[in-house]
Amino acid sequence: MGHVGEAVAHQIVTEGLTDQLVLIDKDVKKLTADYHDFLDAAANLTRHTDIVMNDWDAVADADIVISAVGKINLITLDHPDRFAELNYTSTQVKVVAEHLRAVGFHGQIICISNPCDVMTMIYQEVTGLPANHVMGTGTMLDSARMRRAVGQAFRVDPRSVSGYNLGEHGNSQFTAWSTVSVLGRPITAIKDEVALDLDSVEHHSSMDAFDVFAGKGYTSFGIAAAANRLADTILRGARTMLPVSNWREDLRCYLSFPVIVGADGVEQQTQWQLTPDEQAKLEHSADCIKEHFEQVMPVKA
Amino acid sequence: MGHVGEAVAHQIVTEGLTDQLVLIDKDVKKLTADYHDFLDAAANLTRHTDIVMNDWDAVADADIVISAVGKINLITLDHPDRFAELNYTSTQVKVVAEHLRAVGFHGQIICISNPCDVMTMIYQEVTGLPANHVMGTGTMLDSARMRRAVGQAFRVDPRSVSGYNLGEHGNSQFTAWSTVSVLGRPITAIKDEVALDLDSVEHHSSMDAFDVFAGKGYTSFGIAAAANRLADTILRGARTMLPVSNWREDLRCYLSFPVIVGADGVEQQTQWQLTPDEQAKLEHSADCIKEHFEQVMPVKA
Amino acid sequence: MGHVGEAVAHQIVTEGLTDQLVLIDKDVKKLTADYHDFLDAAANLTRHTDIVMNDWDAVADADIVISAVGKINLITLDHPDRFAELNYTSTQVKVVAEHLRAVGFHGQIICISNPCDVMTMIYQEVTGLPANHVMGTGTMLDSARMRRAVGQAFRVDPRSVSGYNLGEHGNSQFTAWSTVSVLGRPITAIKDEVALDLDSVEHHSSMDAFDVFAGKGYTSFGIAAAANRLADTILRGARTMLPVSNWREDLRCYLSFPVIVGADGVEQQTQWQLTPDEQAKLEHSADCIKEHFEQVMPVKA
Amino acid sequence: MGHVGEAVAHQIVTEGLTDQLVLIDKDVKKLTADYHDFLDAAANLTRHTDIVMNDWDAVADADIVISAVGKINLITLDHPDRFAELNYTSTQVKVVAEHLRAVGFHGQIICISNPCDVMTMIYQEVTGLPANHVMGTGTMLDSARMRRAVGQAFRVDPRSVSGYNLGEHGNSQFTAWSTVSVLGRPITAIKDEVALDLDSVEHHSSMDAFDVFAGKGYTSFGIAAAANRLADTILRGARTMLPVSNWREDLRCYLSFPVIVGADGVEQQTQWQLTPDEQAKLEHSADCIKEHFEQVMPVKA
Repeated sequence: MGHVGEAVAHQIVTEGLTDQLVLIDKDVKKLTADYHDFLDAAANLTRHTDIVMNDWDAVADADIVISAVGKINLITLDHPDRFAELNYTSTQVKVVAEHLRAVGFHGQIICISNPCDVMTMIYQEVTGLPANHVMGTGTMLDSARMRRAVGQAFRVDPRSVSGYNLGEHGNSQFTAWSTVSVLGRPITAIKDEVALDLDSVEHHSSMDAFDVFAGKGYTSFGIAAAANRLADTILRGARTMLPVSNWREDLRCYLSFPVIVGADGVEQQTQWQLTPDEQAKLEHSADCIKEHFEQVMPVKA
Repeated sequence: MGHVGEAVAHQIVTEGLTDQLVLIDKDVKKLTADYHDFLDAAANLTRHTDIVMNDWDAVADADIVISAVGKINLITLDHPDRFAELNYTSTQVKVVAEHLRAVGFHGQIICISNPCDVMTMIYQEVTGLPANHVMGTGTMLDSARMRRAVGQAFRVDPRSVSGYNLGEHGNSQFTAWSTVSVLGRPITAIKDEVALDLDSVEHHSSMDAFDVFAGKGYTSFGIAAAANRLADTILRGARTMLPVSNWREDLRCYLSFPVIVGADGVEQQTQWQLTPDEQAKLEHSADCIKEHFEQVMPVKA
Repeated sequence: MGHVGEAVAHQIVTEGLTDQLVLIDKDVKKLTADYHDFLDAAANLTRHTDIVMNDWDAVADADIVISAVGKINLITLDHPDRFAELNYTSTQVKVVAEHLRAVGFHGQIICISNPCDVMTMIYQEVTGLPANHVMGTGTMLDSARMRRAVGQAFRVDPRSVSGYNLGEHGNSQFTAWSTVSVLGRPITAIKDEVALDLDSVEHHSSMDAFDVFAGKGYTSFGIAAAANRLADTILRGARTMLPVSNWREDLRCYLSFPVIVGADGVEQQTQWQLTPDEQAKLEHSADCIKEHFEQVMPVKA
Repeated sequence: MGHVGEAVAHQIVTEGLTDQLVLIDKDVKKLTADYHDFLDAAANLTRHTDIVMNDWDAVADADIVISAVGKINLITLDHPDRFAELNYTSTQVKVVAEHLRAVGFHGQIICISNPCDVMTMIYQEVTGLPANHVMGTGTMLDSARMRRAVGQAFRVDPRSVSGYNLGEHGNSQFTAWSTVSVLGRPITAIKDEVALDLDSVEHHSSMDAFDVFAGKGYTSFGIAAAANRLADTILRGARTMLPVSNWREDLRCYLSFPVIVGADGVEQQTQWQLTPDEQAKLEHSADCIKEHFEQVMPVKA
């Protein structure tokens, strides 16, 4: 229930996305304040949500756990890299994951905690849940940023831009331009019409998080929208294509690539034909993720 | 766009309550961060909202302005009183109100800024807008807190508890117990069945804000829900009874009392038959408000 | 999936009230048309709903069954009485109820079928489900009509009018004026201010259904909104006071009276202090319901 | 306010898509019944909508008019062709369009009436509104049907299938398979994996309307969802790519092709690179539309 957890919960309660919501935090004083603040909103909202706090029995039967554990102030603008959180957050994630296993949690996990792909791998390995029931929000947010930038250039809504950022939710990610289209044409064919610098868009879609971070000390609304969309897709069994961090058997790690998400988590993987350059970037990104994973966890057998 | 403004905007964007949203703040760096964070959410939300920032031309034509100007850290737990903000916030509110008049704003104002009733009076006097087009969220939130407490005691949702806190959104407010009913009976008739201490509920509905404040340094979700419900009621012309801070000709000040709110703002006042004790408390509360108003503004002619 | 079932389903799908929806009808051709029409809407709606048709296995695990079985054209304007449907619909309801028992349905039932109170009693008796898990929409709709009429007289939204129609969802119902208030005062105290004829409002709230029936051959939107609100209240565990048809041990029948509805169905009954006249009307209404129930079912032991 | 108008209005009211709604029909008895039925729903819905009926002054200031004029029973299963409605509906549409001009309507028009493209042309010509402020729902619905069929074949939600049916909302339309992709690949590349017969899907996406028609006598939910999505896109200025019927200067008629829709109606046209075969079909479709238009209207100068 830091900035991100708060924003996730606020969206759930205002939209009425779920009928029950369990809030968990070690800081009981802060948690109680948020809990009361949400209860004080109830009489003026359109939908009722049953909210409880620090109730692990309720978690045991939950359909979905969203993990927003982290310590944003370990990241500095001098060194804008989500791996700065690696040691702290991996320790916390292991504790949460072991707790989930201990209470018999058998639902699905959505991991927001950074570095996202490594933390998602830890959740899967420690809980022992099926790989397709553990996902990271991954590049859902980076893809949204790329679509926003492309959409602004062509004056269309980001929902009408297709395409994805792939790989690590971190500095080794890349925009797969071969997947991007707008106004009915591949972006590679029309970028010159608006003098759009794809490298700049790509850089921004990866690094804009740090501009938001510089301005407010964290990012919250964008990542909350991504996590909640993923949760809603699972709860409704909506079989929607989303670039979530998912287990890739061929690359032996979790990373972001579009998959069909439904009631059974990752239900299908997709077969985009990347360019050789993009494929190389994807493999490089996988290497970065695995390298950091091995720093904090024994290699998955 | 402090904590409260952020929460108001986040709810508007996630619920799609309006088609356009203008964000205003002097701190451009923080504002830009919030703006980008909202844009990054767009691709994963169900409704589109056109968002712009620091655009006073857009404000001039707005239907509603929600004022969340304030400086929460002027309030301390040693001295839990919203009047601690009086001097700072009244100065800021006058600046905003003059700006609204200068750009020709002709819509309606919802004031959250504290001390709420005094700030609402300042907005009306400086802008010169019709009194029924300027409202404060007043005791909407305190009433919600009272209903939550009563609802918990009787195991019913706060939406199924009737009744109001009246007067100042501040320490002189009171619960008008003669207006409160639950489970089909006046609360005064059934409180003994659950050993409910009305004085304790009343104290909490007024002072719980400071518990939330103690835990997280501010309150946000509850007040945002109140402000947005009020805005939605105006925009949809819903003619709903709400305890907003409204101009009372008989008491010569703004204070909270249930009125019918619709497209034309405060459309009707209501005629609850208060007990003599409640009526005395209401008049005392009006005196507190007027006294502080006169400290920061010349008396309304 | 007649007119009412269609409207219930349409609201569920457009609002995204549930994640799954099972449509049942004997007329497979009509049902398939509705099913395809809903699927054709999916790409242009904001929320995904998993829809299946005529799948009783899916019904067995459902949380809620809404029964809209009926034959509206058995009612004529010459004889505007819901008991005209008694013989036909009771036969159908028994078949459905036995089917629900046979597949092991263990959720809750919301009965719209008319005459509503009798059909609700049949559902409970044949399925053997706990009495608090079987409800009829009862006078939710009639109360809404009364509130609309009162609201129009005082220019306030029906949501800001309190009070209930009680008893049978049929001709023996009555408005319990002692429960009705608006603008902060009991309606009995202010009716003369607007020259409101309470008898006329009461007559209309009961008989307006037949005006709608005369104009379009059935009623659908109002009753669908009532049924869906009740379903949402159960699914979200919202503990809301609603005038549903519920089992009254003291009166030995189902009839409408405000109760607290939550995840466990009827969770609490309420103790309104009716006037002697109202109490007599309630008992008369109970007699009407029991008399018709005995015509089509053996007396409950 | 036939079957389609009813469904459009029902979705607007349940989702709260607009704050005001004007219902228009010559059949006052039927219209009054619908109006009362909607008012009876109000107390049990989450959002307030101001509804009025047969008020042309209110129409004059409306942002959007949705035209659902028509006579579905002019179409028979022996001759499943929307042009069967041509003479009747064009006469009615001219009357409505002249009325709109007479009252000074200056908003935008969404035409559902069939044959859709011809009726849209008539609305534009008679009202004299800018061509980009008059649109038909066109192949939004047929595209949704095609996506549903493709989605079912690949077990993904229709929202995760890209691509369009183009041309006339009628028998000369076609699926532009070069625009269709699913699971990250062009459908032309993967159709053999699931033995998908594209000709069959195309036939169904055009003719399934008649199956729904055969089962229930009309279609309503699918077309209502398309019309309301288009209206919401305009009202929110969402700049979304939609295959609406829009004026093509090069083809001298209205027909469906993806365009960017926003607050200013059709804001941008798009430049899909159709195959020569698809381009020929588009031109043929344009010829069909123009030929029928000339039967009922003098050629646009």
